[in-house]
Amino acid sequence: MERNIKLELSYDGTKFHGFQVQPNQRTVQSEIEKAIKELTGFSVNLIASGRTDAGVHARKQVCNFITHSSIPIAKWPNALNSILPDDIIVFSAEEKPLQFHSRYDVKRKTYRYTIYNDRFIDVFKRHYSWHLPYSLNISEMVEASHYFLGEHDFTSFSSARTEVKNKVRTIYQFDIWKEGKEIYFQITGNGFLYNMVRIIVGTIVEIGRGRMEKEQILRLFEEKDRTLSGLTAPPQGLVLWDVIY
Amino acid sequence: MERNIKLELSYDGTKFHGFQVQPNQRTVQSEIEKAIKELTGFSVNLIASGRTDAGVHARKQVCNFITHSSIPIAKWPNALNSILPDDIIVFSAEEKPLQFHSRYDVKRKTYRYTIYNDRFIDVFKRHYSWHLPYSLNISEMVEASHYFLGEHDFTSFSSARTEVKNKVRTIYQFDIWKEGKEIYFQITGNGFLYNMVRIIVGTIVEIGRGRMEKEQILRLFEEKDRTLSGLTAPPQGLVLWDVIY
Repeated sequence: MERNIKLELSYDGTKFHGFQVQPNQRTVQSEIEKAIKELTGFSVNLIASGRTDAGVHARKQVCNFITHSSIPIAKWPNALNSILPDDIIVFSAEEKPLQFHSRYDVKRKTYRYTIYNDRFIDVFKRHYSWHLPYSLNISEMVEASHYFLGEHDFTSFSSARTEVKNKVRTIYQFDIWKEGKEIYFQITGNGFLYNMVRIIVGTIVEIGRGRMEKEQILRLFEEKDRTLSGLTAPPQGLVLWDVIY
Repeated sequence: MERNIKLELSYDGTKFHGFQVQPNQRTVQSEIEKAIKELTGFSVNLIASGRTDAGVHARKQVCNFITHSSIPIAKWPNALNSILPDDIIVFSAEEKPLQFHSRYDVKRKTYRYTIYNDRFIDVFKRHYSWHLPYSLNISEMVEASHYFLGEHDFTSFSSARTEVKNKVRTIYQFDIWKEGKEIYFQITGNGFLYNMVRIIVGTIVEIGRGRMEKEQILRLFEEKDRTLSGLTAPPQGLVLWDVIY
């Protein structure tokens, strides 16, 4: 009998060439598909809530796959973890109706981006934050975040390589705060374009450094021109934080 | 003119075979000595507050070396960091009198040990904590910590391979607390024997699991027998936290 298994997992993206299968590359998807094949004897097509790029982490990624295996649902996390490398942890498995689809059914996604703002990087955070040694105006950055709330065309905030046509997305929540030497950006929306969070962070950092006015964001929404926004912040600061269905 | 340079540094011990130089192994000492040689043209003998084992980390390690280099003291951290691999960060350099010795002059050292206490390990903490999925009695563990305060013979709590003869050490402070899913052990003393913190943690975990009575610690101090104490907790949970002169 066909079963649709939903997995929740986290991974440290440092040593992966992103989520999606690529020939001759170590990816999260290929490691999990390999583990499922080893466990059940059959190949599956693993669907995820979305891809993550090389170096990007996941606190909670959601995937699903169809299997004929009769392994009890409670056994899946430990069974997979015993095969998977230690930079992927499956922490939940649930049986869903066959029509559940971990990409199409997403309602909201949350990403967190971390900047480490001090003269020297904390050695334990080098793979999990963007090191910026210069001072940033947090109040200006918080005010800049408000411009992103609601529905906008994010063409200026997505990679030119983005293939989707509709670049309108809705941001429900966007918080920026400083805690010790770390600056966190936490953003929730109905979907995100390729590199969108990293370009938004890169743009807000320009504003925090005083090299761009926050009002410029309005023009960026209108002009729909990637070359006018900030740099793409590096991948290691980004974590897929939560996925809501 | 001879100068005595004191460095403060942190390192991620995951990929080092410990601090001390060993033939054909990647160690913290050899990386730093290599970087100093590249910078100044001369070999030095780097002295540290003490060794750390393979997999053990340092938030703050202190070293010193004698050099004839005239590089201004403020330039040393960035100059060394530009050569060093990214798992070592020098965050302070200071010129000291020639008689300063980073091992002999230590007054106190603090270590922190972290247990991750949940069904599944947090993937981002796998190199920085000991994963224990079973429940632990924190109150019993806190009470057990009190037995270690003061001056004791720590023979039962040091590796049989310890070469020093005098195994009497003084513990000034020992705190154990739980914060979310993490249990921290923070211990300050005038010195620590080989594996001492890891054996103390291993023993207290036995008490927390209900497999040893805390009063047994008194007997361990008296019997001076390593085989009666708990297992050596794994290295990745241990951090050299601070060194005081």
